[in-house]
Amino acid sequence: MKLQLALDRMTIANAIELTKKVEDSIDWVEVGTSLIKEYGMKSVKELKQAFPNKVIVADIKTIDNARYEFEMAFKAGADVATVMGVSPIVTIEVCLEVANRYNKLVMVDLLNTSEEQVRELRKYNQAIFCAHVSKDEQEEAGAQNLGTKNGSLLTDGSLQLAAAGGITMDSLESLRKTLNPAVVIVGSAITKASNPSEAAGKFKQAIQMGE
Amino acid sequence: MKLQLALDRMTIANAIELTKKVEDSIDWVEVGTSLIKEYGMKSVKELKQAFPNKVIVADIKTIDNARYEFEMAFKAGADVATVMGVSPIVTIEVCLEVANRYNKLVMVDLLNTSEEQVRELRKYNQAIFCAHVSKDEQEEAGAQNLGTKNGSLLTDGSLQLAAAGGITMDSLESLRKTLNPAVVIVGSAITKASNPSEAAGKFKQAIQMGE
Repeated sequence: MKLQLALDRMTIANAIELTKKVEDSIDWVEVGTSLIKEYGMKSVKELKQAFPNKVIVADIKTIDNARYEFEMAFKAGADVATVMGVSPIVTIEVCLEVANRYNKLVMVDLLNTSEEQVRELRKYNQAIFCAHVSKDEQEEAGAQNLGTKNGSLLTDGSLQLAAAGGITMDSLESLRKTLNPAVVIVGSAITKASNPSEAAGKFKQAIQMGE
Repeated sequence: MKLQLALDRMTIANAIELTKKVEDSIDWVEVGTSLIKEYGMKSVKELKQAFPNKVIVADIKTIDNARYEFEMAFKAGADVATVMGVSPIVTIEVCLEVANRYNKLVMVDLLNTSEEQVRELRKYNQAIFCAHVSKDEQEEAGAQNLGTKNGSLLTDGSLQLAAAGGITMDSLESLRKTLNPAVVIVGSAITKASNPSEAAGKFKQAIQMGE
């Protein structure tokens, strides 16, 4: 299980500073959508420059204009870029084609997808599928249904999974029992911890103990 | 009917230069998603500074983190910001709340929404609803179904409509007969014309003649 650090709602300088504190404990570094929309591709470029040996995930949340956006993200240094599962299917297919050409990866964000959409998406099994409870659903509606919605469609072993949305040390164990994702995405439980380095270390230890 | 110029796949400097050429013919200026993801809020800020008397639409395509993204867009100078209709409902509601607080507008992008989603969204009639055939559907799948999908749910007169997606002088007349949008969004038919000023002038004239 890999640990992906999600960097959101901060400056690029703060994102780099924070990642430096935790880099020994994390595997993948996510340049959050808020950084991309606030600072553009500069955010991806500077994070890749600062951490050339980390896998950089550009959470660009493409929903249209796939070729342009994915080329832009990969040229800026991203190793993985995200596309929304609620996009038209042609958009997903273009993302996969571009990623294949650049020898990079696609992460399909399943946020608010229907069961029918998940069924249709399953065939693109070269992508990573990210089960995702959105920030707004967590903060505004108190939702925590990660791993239950469409869970059985995801866990037959044919898909590489990621999971995101309010994951804490407390929820990590149950997440392992339900989705058992290859990538666990953690944001504020590390970035807003009083000691981010210690928090990331605890996640790493818990992940290793479960393997 | 207002004419919204969509600026995509170009630098901020080119966007400003192009808008200067056509500003007498257009009403609203859209900072396209590709500009936002490539250059961040700088794109919105510089377009608003260059055209302080135009309505600036930030096509930020929010699908999560609504409060942060909408505040960011309005602070950068946007008068209208977009949210995806395929978002969780709580996301739409937060966008409306923020827009109300800033005395700004929400445009709900209906790209790839189901009939059920459009039915649920109709009650948020303080927003502008944008019927949208995506770039990828146009370019990769040749789709041109603007105004037909869920059309009858949109045209009962209770909603303010916009329309986007490959609109040309040829399709403007049929669009008026089907959706009759309050805002018609034109991108490449102006931005890629050999003479953008002349192209925008023709759109303006056709719009005025139909009123």
